[in-house]
Amino acid sequence: MMLHCLLAIDAGGTSTRAAVLDASGLCLGYGVAGGGNPVSAGYDGALTAVAAAAAMAANASLREPLAISSALIAMAGASLRIQPAPIAERLAAVGVHCDVEIEADLLAMFHSGTHRRFGCVLVAGTGAVAARVTDGRMELVVDGTGWLLGDTGSGYWIGHRVARAVVAALESRGPQTALTDLMLVELGLEVTPERVQGRPRVLLDLIDTLYHLRPVELSRFAPLVFKAAGQDSVAARIVSAAASALAGTLDAVRDPAGDGPLVIGGSIARALLRAPTDLAAPLREVLGNEVIPVADGLIGAGVLGLRRAGIPVDADVFRRIQQSVATFRDASVLSTTPARTI
Amino acid sequence: MMLHCLLAIDAGGTSTRAAVLDASGLCLGYGVAGGGNPVSAGYDGALTAVAAAAAMAANASLREPLAISSALIAMAGASLRIQPAPIAERLAAVGVHCDVEIEADLLAMFHSGTHRRFGCVLVAGTGAVAARVTDGRMELVVDGTGWLLGDTGSGYWIGHRVARAVVAALESRGPQTALTDLMLVELGLEVTPERVQGRPRVLLDLIDTLYHLRPVELSRFAPLVFKAAGQDSVAARIVSAAASALAGTLDAVRDPAGDGPLVIGGSIARALLRAPTDLAAPLREVLGNEVIPVADGLIGAGVLGLRRAGIPVDADVFRRIQQSVATFRDASVLSTTPARTI
Repeated sequence: MMLHCLLAIDAGGTSTRAAVLDASGLCLGYGVAGGGNPVSAGYDGALTAVAAAAAMAANASLREPLAISSALIAMAGASLRIQPAPIAERLAAVGVHCDVEIEADLLAMFHSGTHRRFGCVLVAGTGAVAARVTDGRMELVVDGTGWLLGDTGSGYWIGHRVARAVVAALESRGPQTALTDLMLVELGLEVTPERVQGRPRVLLDLIDTLYHLRPVELSRFAPLVFKAAGQDSVAARIVSAAASALAGTLDAVRDPAGDGPLVIGGSIARALLRAPTDLAAPLREVLGNEVIPVADGLIGAGVLGLRRAGIPVDADVFRRIQQSVATFRDASVLSTTPARTI
Repeated sequence: MMLHCLLAIDAGGTSTRAAVLDASGLCLGYGVAGGGNPVSAGYDGALTAVAAAAAMAANASLREPLAISSALIAMAGASLRIQPAPIAERLAAVGVHCDVEIEADLLAMFHSGTHRRFGCVLVAGTGAVAARVTDGRMELVVDGTGWLLGDTGSGYWIGHRVARAVVAALESRGPQTALTDLMLVELGLEVTPERVQGRPRVLLDLIDTLYHLRPVELSRFAPLVFKAAGQDSVAARIVSAAASALAGTLDAVRDPAGDGPLVIGGSIARALLRAPTDLAAPLREVLGNEVIPVADGLIGAGVLGLRRAGIPVDADVFRRIQQSVATFRDASVLSTTPARTI
């Protein structure tokens, strides 16, 4: 297969990133758009974001014209049997005519950290999941089972505990916590002495507000525990429990005899790595010697796309992708909104 | 106010019960219909159940004709500002013309156990809630904050832990447990050696099945922990944690200086009282000396209805309601379906 250029796309929950790479791995264009996760953005919303990021990357390119022969899209919805054809149509509609292939975002996340074909990856953002990668494939995947059944240690899991702890504190059936004020301020609710039907008015307001969110939106309260953990024992316990839960997930994918790096992604995992050592201790203890934090799956989408086109990705090619993508990102002033990138 | 007869109705989640009482508290008719909780049965479904139970009680009466002047309906949705007028209309449509008043099901549950005006009540079924009753009013209500934010120790809370424990066990990130087989059998799922996308096939089937339930339906798995707790440490820990959670809720409503009995209702609370002493120990320790288990809020609806009509309910009247309602219930062969009651 003759590759002119490759379009690498990472369709994430918060934003979608795209890069045009040449056959040597050099980034020629970069684009970013809104959330591209089919579960949270909806099927059509995801296609729109993917097309917008792709068009921006193709148009932002320094060399004109670009012949883009294939696109590799890393997507959480890979498990939902999303078909390449409708995505190819949507790309064609914005002037990008190419073959489309879809890969699991988790594998792309791993390859954003390394070109090697063995190792592990742990991602904890709104959800939480880990995988063991063997010979470039996901041999074993653990958790990522969603807000109701798993995602232990994730942003949702933490935010849910915050909400339950605050409700319990307002009823005095749980310990008082600094999280209460932080959460009420975040939601614009005020404590009043008023009681209704044997309960504090602010509690009824809080319950009403929280049941109007989609459950997974409770993840917005996760940052509060990192803010409060230094002075508040309830918050500290939640941080520590999240670290233990993620350690358990990681432990379940680790092959004692296996080698390779551990790639770490997601806002919660990164926050835990920055947290005071004693709180994140359960996780730190199982991290191993070679830990590579990554921001997203874009570089890995490039690695997977080049490999699918028959181009070996060694340490040199990997470094070229990394550095040239970083140059474009820096140029876009670390913006995550399309408006500021143009 | 001149009272001919009173219609007492307890509109519960699983079934709705109605009794016609005369001014002395003697039960003259009894009826039962489907779930009458406006949250789970829907507003219209709840009205239909209430009317069906009322009509059956009025028609099943031994003395004809009955002049029913008022109805007291105990309902979880009392907090949802359900209006009496539409209920009165629906009762009139089945031939029962009377004034309608609505009371909180929790207060009715308390008065199903006692005519006294001070004490506490703890109800743990699908949800979990406790209240302190002072001078016949609910002075303090704790928990009952729903599946997402509270209801700690409830059927949902237990069933949710069962589901999470089984998912974790199938991924080997949690301990193996007898609950896995019990749950898979309950759902008709089979373990196969097949793996899909780095996961066991049965896990994907289970996740798919559970996300198709409404979250609160996870309460159907609560009975499994009581079945397994004798031989399984995961199940035993869940039972014990539920007992601790309910003890905390009860503790938050108890007035150290207060007196009066503790009325206990709901399938989970009753199961815990029957559970081996060591598992339910955290709850038993805070129960106090005078514990009265009750089946539902029907007798209490009668107590509240008579009091609203200006009739004092003392120990004699209370006993008369209790015994005469029990006679009708026994006659209906403990049936909970209308067909078998007629």
